[in-house]
Amino acid sequence: MVKTNLPLDADRLWADVMALAEITDPQRPYTRRSFTALFLEGREWLVQRFNEAGLTTRIDTAGNLIGRMEGRNPALGVIAIGSHSDTVPSGGRFDGIAGVATGLEIVRALRDSGVQPEHTIEVIDFLAEEPSEYGLSCVGSRGMTGSLDDKMLALTEPGGETLRDALRRVGGDPDRLELAKRDDIRAFLELHIEQGIVLESQSLDVGIVSSIVGIRRIEVIFQGEADHAGTTPMALRHDALVAAAATVSSVRRAAEQLAAGGADYFVATVGILSVDPSASNIVPGRCRLVIDARTTQPALTQRFVEIIDRESTAHAMAARVTRATFATLSDGPPVACDPALRTALREGAHDLGLSEIDLPSGAGHDAAFMSRICPSAMIFVPCRAGKSHAPEEWADREAIAAGAAAIYQAVKALDQSLGRNG
Amino acid sequence: MVKTNLPLDADRLWADVMALAEITDPQRPYTRRSFTALFLEGREWLVQRFNEAGLTTRIDTAGNLIGRMEGRNPALGVIAIGSHSDTVPSGGRFDGIAGVATGLEIVRALRDSGVQPEHTIEVIDFLAEEPSEYGLSCVGSRGMTGSLDDKMLALTEPGGETLRDALRRVGGDPDRLELAKRDDIRAFLELHIEQGIVLESQSLDVGIVSSIVGIRRIEVIFQGEADHAGTTPMALRHDALVAAAATVSSVRRAAEQLAAGGADYFVATVGILSVDPSASNIVPGRCRLVIDARTTQPALTQRFVEIIDRESTAHAMAARVTRATFATLSDGPPVACDPALRTALREGAHDLGLSEIDLPSGAGHDAAFMSRICPSAMIFVPCRAGKSHAPEEWADREAIAAGAAAIYQAVKALDQSLGRNG
Repeated sequence: MVKTNLPLDADRLWADVMALAEITDPQRPYTRRSFTALFLEGREWLVQRFNEAGLTTRIDTAGNLIGRMEGRNPALGVIAIGSHSDTVPSGGRFDGIAGVATGLEIVRALRDSGVQPEHTIEVIDFLAEEPSEYGLSCVGSRGMTGSLDDKMLALTEPGGETLRDALRRVGGDPDRLELAKRDDIRAFLELHIEQGIVLESQSLDVGIVSSIVGIRRIEVIFQGEADHAGTTPMALRHDALVAAAATVSSVRRAAEQLAAGGADYFVATVGILSVDPSASNIVPGRCRLVIDARTTQPALTQRFVEIIDRESTAHAMAARVTRATFATLSDGPPVACDPALRTALREGAHDLGLSEIDLPSGAGHDAAFMSRICPSAMIFVPCRAGKSHAPEEWADREAIAAGAAAIYQAVKALDQSLGRNG
Repeated sequence: MVKTNLPLDADRLWADVMALAEITDPQRPYTRRSFTALFLEGREWLVQRFNEAGLTTRIDTAGNLIGRMEGRNPALGVIAIGSHSDTVPSGGRFDGIAGVATGLEIVRALRDSGVQPEHTIEVIDFLAEEPSEYGLSCVGSRGMTGSLDDKMLALTEPGGETLRDALRRVGGDPDRLELAKRDDIRAFLELHIEQGIVLESQSLDVGIVSSIVGIRRIEVIFQGEADHAGTTPMALRHDALVAAAATVSSVRRAAEQLAAGGADYFVATVGILSVDPSASNIVPGRCRLVIDARTTQPALTQRFVEIIDRESTAHAMAARVTRATFATLSDGPPVACDPALRTALREGAHDLGLSEIDLPSGAGHDAAFMSRICPSAMIFVPCRAGKSHAPEEWADREAIAAGAAAIYQAVKALDQSLGRNG
């Protein structure tokens, strides 16, 4: 439903989201990959908007763009609001961007209201939240929370550039990452599109995120022999794809069982499967696949990995190939959102007459890393048909404004309560 | 065993094979892909060798390099010997090349013996026998046999060039392909490494090829939906890779059953499987796979295709995706080699004291297309461990020379018998 009398300017917020969406690879909207020239163009545009809103801006050593509105009582610390401006390839106009634009609109609305907050307010555009060409996601929020290590900085994109060099290129300083780590943030709030269908299907205004799934990524490589597909009898083959395909089936079967098992959230996906040498007349000699498993309950991932470890070993044996690699690429635990911040967001929604529900996040977010250094919480707004990471991704103007307004209310309340009654 | 007193120069033949192998992409030996600058460099080297051997050379309109030694009685027609000089990526030094060098060495040996044959002798380097970047194999032998059509010429490589333009670029003339089609060839003989382990494991000198498998290539595309891998519950997914993986398992199972069923040769392979968009956090929206099925008995391929058609349809339904494509990319029937030429090759081997065996070819060869326009036959020589299409591909100097000498004997006999007692 259309909300009137919101404490911020829905049109101004919407205009920012739409304008940033225009900064895209024209061949495949909406693409603004981290570390690219387009990404830097988008940031330049953001810096101008931040400056117009009276914010002082800087890039921290982890490559995050930060706009700062000084509080009346800086000793109270910072209330931060943000998300990310990078996209997946052929992504959408809202994932990430809506959260950055929300932070910007909240500081403008605070100024418009004539009230200078007690706390300093920061708007953060985290670097490279989406999986980057360097094989790592949440680069900026990892950096801000002391979770970006040398091994990650040594990752390279297909062209050979290291993440370390790329970070320097976008204004960060990989040699002084400790300066990016914060201990002065008292609350972090992030608005994001739901990327699911719960809110839309129940006609709810906002979701108060209860927890963010943990994500385990596992790389499996099967090594066989690249023989001639015409002259190698079936009984003498060492076909790596046969083992990989059976493993894809195992992942599907195990994930369906674990998801159906109970109240906890569980999904698993094989999104990457590459075949080498990839010719119609050569038996695949090597296959690599990446498994992505997510849950709110770590024990489920543990059971899942045990099943896949056992079954992929059996598939390798049956195909007479070697399981050369079965490695954890990354393993982020599930994160519960801060109860006090959730309460503030819920009350903010109620102030405005918005309907809400608690729900888990199946996607990873910068807020999951931020929870390592400060209380963090998220609000979800409905998106059409749950579609995300695709050009047709869509959230209504009123939906984004309603979620942003709930955060605005929460920020005002937290500004009064944080550091006072604690 | 080392054969002495062969009627040709084993060292000279070997030197040609080794020299041509040096013309390779240094980053991934041994690679000389058709239509590339390296390929043309290899042909330039061949033209020089052809000229030194007294051959007149030309490129026909199908892009085949042909060296010609005029016979005493040109009205008798042509005895042709050849194979191809292109390789697969990271291929070997012998597949194809050994057959071209054999033709060259045979005309040199004929000259050395001081005898001008009655028939004209041609040495042919067929264009692009291996699957090219345009998705087609045996381009030159298709062209020489009237089997290269406009649809094939319209195929494009990833950079966008059509096969038609590429053919023109290497000296062919796609608008006058009818000039490449031949009716004057009375016999075609091809030497090739076995690419299998029959000869090596039985310590035999040569194989007399009985038939060449038919090859059916089938493209299958599953279309699902590229959803977020974190926020899309298992029960709501349309995962194209799940259907594709199950189809790979079906291909393996069906091929093993058909191969085990009887005396006829059958193999099937999924050598290409691509995932779109191929990101760890996106459910695969689209998958393409190419199935390669080969047999000496067409009824087996028919049964195989029925099984895979049925099972891939079921896999699509189970994964809630669409089987958007199930198409035959190419379908070459099996070919029996010419009995009279096989006899000539067998007698040639016996003349030289070579041991031999009849065996089918699991690989496709230019000889399969040539059999459409003239009697054709092949001789196989042993290769180490059956390895082919790989850098470690290896055939001994004496093995190649023995096979070439058997063809030399057959050519001399056929030169006397063909067109005389027919």
